[in-house]
Amino acid sequence: MTGTELHHVGQYSFDPSVLPGNIENFTGVAQVPLGVAGPLRINGEHANGDFYVPLATTEGTLVASYNRGMRVLIETGGVRATVVDDKMQRSPVFMFDNAVAARDFGTWIDENLEDIRAAAASTTRSGRLTSIVQHVLGPLLYLRINYTTGDAAGQNMTGKATLAACDWIQQTYPGHPRFLLSGNTETDKKHSHINVLLTRGKRVVAEATVSREVLRTRMGVDSRDLYRARQVAQSGAFMAGSASNGAQAANGLTALFIATGQDAANVTEAHGGILYTQLLDNGDIYWSITLPALVVATYGGGTGLPSQRECLEMLGCYGAGKVRKFAEICAALVLAGEISLVSAIVLGDWVSSHDELGRNR
Amino acid sequence: MTGTELHHVGQYSFDPSVLPGNIENFTGVAQVPLGVAGPLRINGEHANGDFYVPLATTEGTLVASYNRGMRVLIETGGVRATVVDDKMQRSPVFMFDNAVAARDFGTWIDENLEDIRAAAASTTRSGRLTSIVQHVLGPLLYLRINYTTGDAAGQNMTGKATLAACDWIQQTYPGHPRFLLSGNTETDKKHSHINVLLTRGKRVVAEATVSREVLRTRMGVDSRDLYRARQVAQSGAFMAGSASNGAQAANGLTALFIATGQDAANVTEAHGGILYTQLLDNGDIYWSITLPALVVATYGGGTGLPSQRECLEMLGCYGAGKVRKFAEICAALVLAGEISLVSAIVLGDWVSSHDELGRNR
Amino acid sequence: MTGTELHHVGQYSFDPSVLPGNIENFTGVAQVPLGVAGPLRINGEHANGDFYVPLATTEGTLVASYNRGMRVLIETGGVRATVVDDKMQRSPVFMFDNAVAARDFGTWIDENLEDIRAAAASTTRSGRLTSIVQHVLGPLLYLRINYTTGDAAGQNMTGKATLAACDWIQQTYPGHPRFLLSGNTETDKKHSHINVLLTRGKRVVAEATVSREVLRTRMGVDSRDLYRARQVAQSGAFMAGSASNGAQAANGLTALFIATGQDAANVTEAHGGILYTQLLDNGDIYWSITLPALVVATYGGGTGLPSQRECLEMLGCYGAGKVRKFAEICAALVLAGEISLVSAIVLGDWVSSHDELGRNR
Amino acid sequence: MTGTELHHVGQYSFDPSVLPGNIENFTGVAQVPLGVAGPLRINGEHANGDFYVPLATTEGTLVASYNRGMRVLIETGGVRATVVDDKMQRSPVFMFDNAVAARDFGTWIDENLEDIRAAAASTTRSGRLTSIVQHVLGPLLYLRINYTTGDAAGQNMTGKATLAACDWIQQTYPGHPRFLLSGNTETDKKHSHINVLLTRGKRVVAEATVSREVLRTRMGVDSRDLYRARQVAQSGAFMAGSASNGAQAANGLTALFIATGQDAANVTEAHGGILYTQLLDNGDIYWSITLPALVVATYGGGTGLPSQRECLEMLGCYGAGKVRKFAEICAALVLAGEISLVSAIVLGDWVSSHDELGRNR
Repeated sequence: MTGTELHHVGQYSFDPSVLPGNIENFTGVAQVPLGVAGPLRINGEHANGDFYVPLATTEGTLVASYNRGMRVLIETGGVRATVVDDKMQRSPVFMFDNAVAARDFGTWIDENLEDIRAAAASTTRSGRLTSIVQHVLGPLLYLRINYTTGDAAGQNMTGKATLAACDWIQQTYPGHPRFLLSGNTETDKKHSHINVLLTRGKRVVAEATVSREVLRTRMGVDSRDLYRARQVAQSGAFMAGSASNGAQAANGLTALFIATGQDAANVTEAHGGILYTQLLDNGDIYWSITLPALVVATYGGGTGLPSQRECLEMLGCYGAGKVRKFAEICAALVLAGEISLVSAIVLGDWVSSHDELGRNR
Repeated sequence: MTGTELHHVGQYSFDPSVLPGNIENFTGVAQVPLGVAGPLRINGEHANGDFYVPLATTEGTLVASYNRGMRVLIETGGVRATVVDDKMQRSPVFMFDNAVAARDFGTWIDENLEDIRAAAASTTRSGRLTSIVQHVLGPLLYLRINYTTGDAAGQNMTGKATLAACDWIQQTYPGHPRFLLSGNTETDKKHSHINVLLTRGKRVVAEATVSREVLRTRMGVDSRDLYRARQVAQSGAFMAGSASNGAQAANGLTALFIATGQDAANVTEAHGGILYTQLLDNGDIYWSITLPALVVATYGGGTGLPSQRECLEMLGCYGAGKVRKFAEICAALVLAGEISLVSAIVLGDWVSSHDELGRNR
Repeated sequence: MTGTELHHVGQYSFDPSVLPGNIENFTGVAQVPLGVAGPLRINGEHANGDFYVPLATTEGTLVASYNRGMRVLIETGGVRATVVDDKMQRSPVFMFDNAVAARDFGTWIDENLEDIRAAAASTTRSGRLTSIVQHVLGPLLYLRINYTTGDAAGQNMTGKATLAACDWIQQTYPGHPRFLLSGNTETDKKHSHINVLLTRGKRVVAEATVSREVLRTRMGVDSRDLYRARQVAQSGAFMAGSASNGAQAANGLTALFIATGQDAANVTEAHGGILYTQLLDNGDIYWSITLPALVVATYGGGTGLPSQRECLEMLGCYGAGKVRKFAEICAALVLAGEISLVSAIVLGDWVSSHDELGRNR
Repeated sequence: MTGTELHHVGQYSFDPSVLPGNIENFTGVAQVPLGVAGPLRINGEHANGDFYVPLATTEGTLVASYNRGMRVLIETGGVRATVVDDKMQRSPVFMFDNAVAARDFGTWIDENLEDIRAAAASTTRSGRLTSIVQHVLGPLLYLRINYTTGDAAGQNMTGKATLAACDWIQQTYPGHPRFLLSGNTETDKKHSHINVLLTRGKRVVAEATVSREVLRTRMGVDSRDLYRARQVAQSGAFMAGSASNGAQAANGLTALFIATGQDAANVTEAHGGILYTQLLDNGDIYWSITLPALVVATYGGGTGLPSQRECLEMLGCYGAGKVRKFAEICAALVLAGEISLVSAIVLGDWVSSHDELGRNR
């Protein structure tokens, strides 16, 4: 239709019939270059061992930057990682004539949680409604309905379950209140404070203590300089109203998400986070990254597509029972990137790396 | 190294030697399914005509959702789109002993803008330093150095130019103050208020007036209901502290970015925006989306890779002089998705669409 | 000590011996002019009837502006008001070596809630620990410990109770973890998203439907114009990253807080809110204001001081069992001010009011 | 009207005829207890010497807490303070049919700045229009019109000047576009990111280096412990989405504002700020507080009222040419309070202070 000849787009190695649930108007593929960074050594609760991380990107130096962080981390004994919370949600809103009606409805919701859970459960085997958070705003009651979602990201599963729950509520509650399936307070595919505070998907922490010596020899930076640079960057982020006080979480997450068939639009939620560091008395630095809204899957969505599945398999993360392992790898990857880029900024070799490896040629 | 056989990852249709500036440790490609939505009719200042938009995604219903919005828009005569601002930046920070020194340095910066511009200009032909915004924070002076960047996204270009500028400043200014090339206030690859307010990349608006009749017949919704739903969604977004008061900008942008070789991590910046609508007296609805931090390119980065270039060519957007056209297409695409999803939420057919087309099978 | 003669500061009508719990280095009083606005007609759950509201301010037109809004509201039958949530908190933080330890400690907190509640209860009769919200950030666990506080604002009460709870926790939990009594996540005396989302003090809504006719005759504005102006103001507030999308909540609250012996510094928390309006089919406008962090008292603090107590008595709000009534009056007052100022901006008579009544003489 | 006898409210020491510009429906006064903290030693650009600071409050321990911080500061040689920016604004919004019209209008605004300045100047002698910042949002152009305002806070002055400017613009620009005098992006009486980033009123920094020894002997805390507590508090504030990463700016500012006839509602803007500290190699701590939106006056408003004027005179800040001196005192006061409360939290004596001095008796 456009007259452009799609030679490369039309080159793909799989049977398009695997695709109907993933795309409409299928025309071919985007071939995104894939590099491997690693090994990334993780001592997690679910991920344990050395991982070679597939990163699909067109940005020169990205793989090299993460690689450099991973080399530092391996000299510290690896990254600890842990999933500290896990919930996915849909946030419908019920609309009333006034605030008293909205608040009273909220009381009824609390009292009927079991029945609402049962209504939601009729639509899914793997998801379970765990809790409902309420926010009254004028005559509106926004519900944030939390679910476990197994190894799926769960947006669709929670959408179906919430529709069933809302239908039951509407039929049962006197007056049959109107609702919208989303009041925009789950902020799907959007960064938000509510997700930072109340978790969306996995809340994960990765952490490592990097010795002064390793920072000096491997990164060429003094740990005190590096720590001071962090104070400056963190104050800048606070003043700027930034979604993250770190350096480049989005880079690694986007590349890993594309490689492994995650919904890459969820990087908007996942990239928000808090880099917390401490300079220890001996000059070593404790690093941690907390990602409060990491929406990932090892089952469903794009995870089963051919190249994507191979990338998940590289990490031992394809299929059921793997999603927390994958979440820990995501966080450990982000930590590697933070150590690498923060050090580069302090060292001042940031631009020259791009000159050597990247597109500044 | 991992024992996984990479059959599909290893299938690509191009000569890897084109890649050195885009990736390290090249192993193969992620094959991301690509669908086409359109035609998207745009009456922009740079984009004019009907466009078939390549969307690389693994999320079922995404292409269909945007397609539906485009059908509505074509019945309204198309989308108007315009780039209202254009600047890319790097934000170094200079560190002093106290605030007076920081402020006085700021005065000197203002007085020496021409020399600073010249220092920056020595590194690039296509970028030009246009202005410097200052923020004093204690003994620190954060500079937000704005550039034009031609058809490149410009992160590297502005990094090099800023390093040259800072080196000149450091050598010239009495006392030779220390600096970091980034103080984190350009919030690269991060959503932030500073970028919403001061623009990063392109600030673009797309807008259309959709008649009550078209909303009724095409989307099955009454325009008053739809407008009320917008008030609820917008209040929810405000309460939630969301990066956007809209519905799904990240979905379309991510898919288009992957297809066309943009840096997909920039969706974190690009997805923040403001959906502004008005219900007109005749029941029609005026829609506009404002994207204040759209970082895009038609030259450099991944734009020249084989499948990516073909996708840009589909849009007539490959190469020099095309970036504003591409920015207008991005914004028009987002608007199509907003109209589609907001209507679907009002209609309540959102879940059933996913059941029919998507992964809820 | 400064050589200034304090003639007026030294004029006060009470025995300074009533003061030791309210001030140190007592020197006299600030005499803040007090005007009365009203009647403010409220149909609340606790406040019912017509109220004359004492406002201590030095800002010309403030009392007149609120008065004008009250006149409009009385013609609509008055303001409905309701307290939808009520909790005060202190947020200690416990510090561990790593995130696993922090998360495991959190599990223990949940399991030992009854004992923690008992420890807190030893310090106070009127406060009761109701729930504990947890946020893991790296190796830290921030607790947000919620209490009822009777008719007191409760900052000190919750501080004492939380110290007792933390001391018990520290002694009981293996390893005796270190803690700070505040990790800054209750954001005492500061606006924050966490308080908007999780409530601090009272969460109150005031609402009224104002007829098109009253808006036209009393305020001189067309309700459609006014509603459009709201969309513009609300979009501006969203773009600006404002604590409120309304017009002037802080004006009325500050004046009422000073008059009635509230801690006026709590206006920083109280002023954040959401003005939600709907244009009805008949042209009338439904207005609501939601204040999610209204910290107020009718007992303790400055409420018992001579002039302050008189002002509370004017409202029938002095002493035990009155705090929700007072909270409803606060919200109704804010609503009156919003209607007044939004109308004035639309009418364009804002500046001329200041010329006539205020300080632009 | 309410039947309450206003014995104390009716006691005031001045002739009510001084008041017509400050209040309507004058009934008497709120007598707010006033304590004095000091001396506060300042080495500012405008404030130099030892100051006794009048604080009007009903909160026990407030004066004592600030006093304690001042004692520490005096042992460090005093506080440095400086005003780094100074601008007050009104933000009208012009409304068009589409974004192109809005943007083109913006270009015209830039080209006609001198005429706009002249139109504004017709209304005031002390204010001067300095610059206009623009934000396009869909079909709207929000202007942020900055002024100098002499020794007045300037809200009314800038309102009048902006109305004159907008009237001139409307008459002159083809099509005579509609406008609202406020689009809510100056966020008057509201905390906002835009004010943190673009300054409202005075942007002031106060700073001091406190020796390890003084912290140990005077506050009883180890400087390393204190510095670590700051990292925790600052991370908590970032996660919470707080207006300030400090401890209690609002307490001191509110008390000083009430004492000196400032508009106390402006504390909502003033309390937002950034506490930036560094642990020096010798164990001393550098402290700085940056207040980006300090709206204050030494002329006009409530500054000329009897007790208020006396309080300004105590500081040598009454009348013309004093406002920057007063702004420096405000920031120095805030710094004293931060050092005091942060130390108290680390020491754990916070609750016991309230028990001894305050209302926990």
